[in-house]
Amino acid sequence: MDATWLDAIKWDRDGLVPVIAQEVGSNDVLMFAFMNREALARTVETQRAVYWSRSRARLWHKGEESGHVQQVHDIRLDCDNDVVLLKVKQLGHEPGIACHTGRHSCFFQQLEDGQWKAVEPVLKDPGRIYK
Amino acid sequence: MDATWLDAIKWDRDGLVPVIAQEVGSNDVLMFAFMNREALARTVETQRAVYWSRSRARLWHKGEESGHVQQVHDIRLDCDNDVVLLKVKQLGHEPGIACHTGRHSCFFQQLEDGQWKAVEPVLKDPGRIYK
Repeated sequence: MDATWLDAIKWDRDGLVPVIAQEVGSNDVLMFAFMNREALARTVETQRAVYWSRSRARLWHKGEESGHVQQVHDIRLDCDNDVVLLKVKQLGHEPGIACHTGRHSCFFQQLEDGQWKAVEPVLKDPGRIYK
Repeated sequence: MDATWLDAIKWDRDGLVPVIAQEVGSNDVLMFAFMNREALARTVETQRAVYWSRSRARLWHKGEESGHVQQVHDIRLDCDNDVVLLKVKQLGHEPGIACHTGRHSCFFQQLEDGQWKAVEPVLKDPGRIYK
């Protein structure tokens, strides 16, 4: 594979790039994660989001346990070549669940009067997502 | 100031947290940057986005040179307490310009047939933004 497009990315000192996943249509920001070179290459090849799990130190095929796969519609790179934006369709549940807490988006805590408050509903019990 | 909400954030090894700025209304992802504790505190106090510039190693009041200030409407924290999402109104130009290249969004490079292509127009010549 000609990997010139991968070489264009400024990988960080750990060989990773931050990735924002945004839902096609609603434009909701669903989650934030990292990719290494292999994860991004596989994401492009399969058109399914593949991240690098820093806690498990391995490739993480999004949805591998939950079934909440992300179908990739668009891949963007920022002006500094060091952040990737994925536009995805969040599959496996309607409405889409991107967060391991069973919520649509990981960004469900809102700052209000000096406190973080969970303001988005749990769409599916995590105990039923991860059996 | 009671800073319990700041303590809830898992700051990285450099004392920073990644921040995604998203436009109110369109939900477009405008840019990605970092904040330290002081930047986030000032952002909340002033309701204007203040980032930490890693390259200049100082607080960066967004729009301090360009006039392209971000008015903050909502502040979210993700499920792992280590990424912040700002919903902002991008001021100073209509339509809003968040990128130093004079574009609406920093995410203007699209992967197409193995190449990154600039697919968003320059709304204002950077030479006229940064005098």
